[in-house]
Amino acid sequence: MEIEFVNWMLPLIPDDPRLEVPAGDDAAVLRTRGARRTVLTVDMLTEGVDFVLGANCSAKQVGHKALAVNLSDLAAMAAQPETIVVAVCLPRNSDCMIPQELFKGIHTLASQHDVALAGGDTNTWDGGLVISITALGSVEPQKAWRRQGATKGDLVVVTGPCGGSILGRHLTVTPRCREAQMIAKRFNVRSAIDISDGLSLDLSRMMAASGTGCILHATDIPIHDDAMTLSQQSGDDRSPLEHALSDGEDFELLLTLPAQDAKELVADPPAGLHPTIIGEVIAAQGVFLEDATGTQQPLVPKGFVHVFNK
Amino acid sequence: MEIEFVNWMLPLIPDDPRLEVPAGDDAAVLRTRGARRTVLTVDMLTEGVDFVLGANCSAKQVGHKALAVNLSDLAAMAAQPETIVVAVCLPRNSDCMIPQELFKGIHTLASQHDVALAGGDTNTWDGGLVISITALGSVEPQKAWRRQGATKGDLVVVTGPCGGSILGRHLTVTPRCREAQMIAKRFNVRSAIDISDGLSLDLSRMMAASGTGCILHATDIPIHDDAMTLSQQSGDDRSPLEHALSDGEDFELLLTLPAQDAKELVADPPAGLHPTIIGEVIAAQGVFLEDATGTQQPLVPKGFVHVFNK
Repeated sequence: MEIEFVNWMLPLIPDDPRLEVPAGDDAAVLRTRGARRTVLTVDMLTEGVDFVLGANCSAKQVGHKALAVNLSDLAAMAAQPETIVVAVCLPRNSDCMIPQELFKGIHTLASQHDVALAGGDTNTWDGGLVISITALGSVEPQKAWRRQGATKGDLVVVTGPCGGSILGRHLTVTPRCREAQMIAKRFNVRSAIDISDGLSLDLSRMMAASGTGCILHATDIPIHDDAMTLSQQSGDDRSPLEHALSDGEDFELLLTLPAQDAKELVADPPAGLHPTIIGEVIAAQGVFLEDATGTQQPLVPKGFVHVFNK
Repeated sequence: MEIEFVNWMLPLIPDDPRLEVPAGDDAAVLRTRGARRTVLTVDMLTEGVDFVLGANCSAKQVGHKALAVNLSDLAAMAAQPETIVVAVCLPRNSDCMIPQELFKGIHTLASQHDVALAGGDTNTWDGGLVISITALGSVEPQKAWRRQGATKGDLVVVTGPCGGSILGRHLTVTPRCREAQMIAKRFNVRSAIDISDGLSLDLSRMMAASGTGCILHATDIPIHDDAMTLSQQSGDDRSPLEHALSDGEDFELLLTLPAQDAKELVADPPAGLHPTIIGEVIAAQGVFLEDATGTQQPLVPKGFVHVFNK
């Protein structure tokens, strides 16, 4: 029962000085840090779309992913993660293990990023598993990275290799929160977005928000081994590059920086990060792909889009 | 499509000085008001449990309810509503009207309570409609009402009549945000909770959190006309009082105050509010019901609880 799960969970949540009123009341009360801004994002995952529970995906992994994708949004704003609330609806026939495993996945990642669990809502129904996490972060005034701000001459940087995340990496997302804050301290990042729906699609969104375009260098795009593997599977008709450009759920960051900043970032990145310069920002709108011969072609943004009838 | 809905919606959201970065980026950035605390709550509604779409329930009403139940949680903390984010998953075969009507229901109530819509997440899947709203409010440090704090000798006040909300009132919830803030300014409220799951169940939670109990006077409990109507329906075997005590989704506030404060509140309430004294707090734990003859019996807390298998 709901109350038994909540009573199991509440003692596992450590005290946190950021919470004037912790989880367990009608709402939580948060102390904010000095004059910092609150950064706010929400992401919902649904069974059958974002995960398929079974041998290859545990409820603990779903909990991890649900938090990780939110933290990735905070990373894309250069925000420090602070607090989350979690809403779930559970299939009515679930056993108590499902919410407990979800909690464990959330709690482990939350601890790693010093995130306080401030509350939630546990429901049951006759449908599949749905989990929605709202994450709050903090950032200094006017210091949040935006999608807008890319400027002609900026270089485009991606923080890691892309493609083929469906082979499992989409469940073990590593949000780039610490790395983003380190980059923000040292470099002039002019625009930023995280790759959730696909490199080409998310890049096109950032360019559209900035009123700019960019040229991507096909040979510079870091392709993940998973994209190679996927491309070699029978029935797959896409190249590793196409996978890297459109698969999505890489949760790496796409940044644009003035050329000198971009070069310094790539030469001396935060520990564990392997950023690559993949293109440059131009005044003309659109995203263009330049191949090894120097030929440029418009790149049709591809990636994951939720579709419903009109 | 998702992007068409978002593009339809974003221009309808008015500029708000509380948002340094509005909806449309990876996250929103909020300016907080001075040294006030942030109050944070989340509630998720699911099709078939919290609403049944059809002739008696429009998507616009679902949007209204989803926001109203969150604002009611903020009211129970005496918080001023500030900002929301909304996550929905839509049945894949829905037409564009569903998210638009949801938005209209949310937007209308948000405008009435001066709430800024800071972002959201729109998903589709093969299941039913789910909507999760996270609401942020603000309150002065140490001024949030808590469930704990009820003290022997306090009187128990309910802000309106209860019971029978299933006849339609559960969709047209009026959150008591303004009234709560007015009461907080004038009176010493020692504990508070909103009635979501049922008067007796929510009261028992508040008493348990406070480490106290209370005696309810059966003849003083304000019974809504809907409870009378429901009780008279064929097949209904519960009295109007039983409906008032256990139906839930009344979204009135239960408060305890020192006797003098409670009497002054009832004698001179905020405009439009009809609060009633229904009992008094005692040191012994438990909730007891006293009938017209003065006989007291333990009241078994009843109301809505989500159940899943162990």
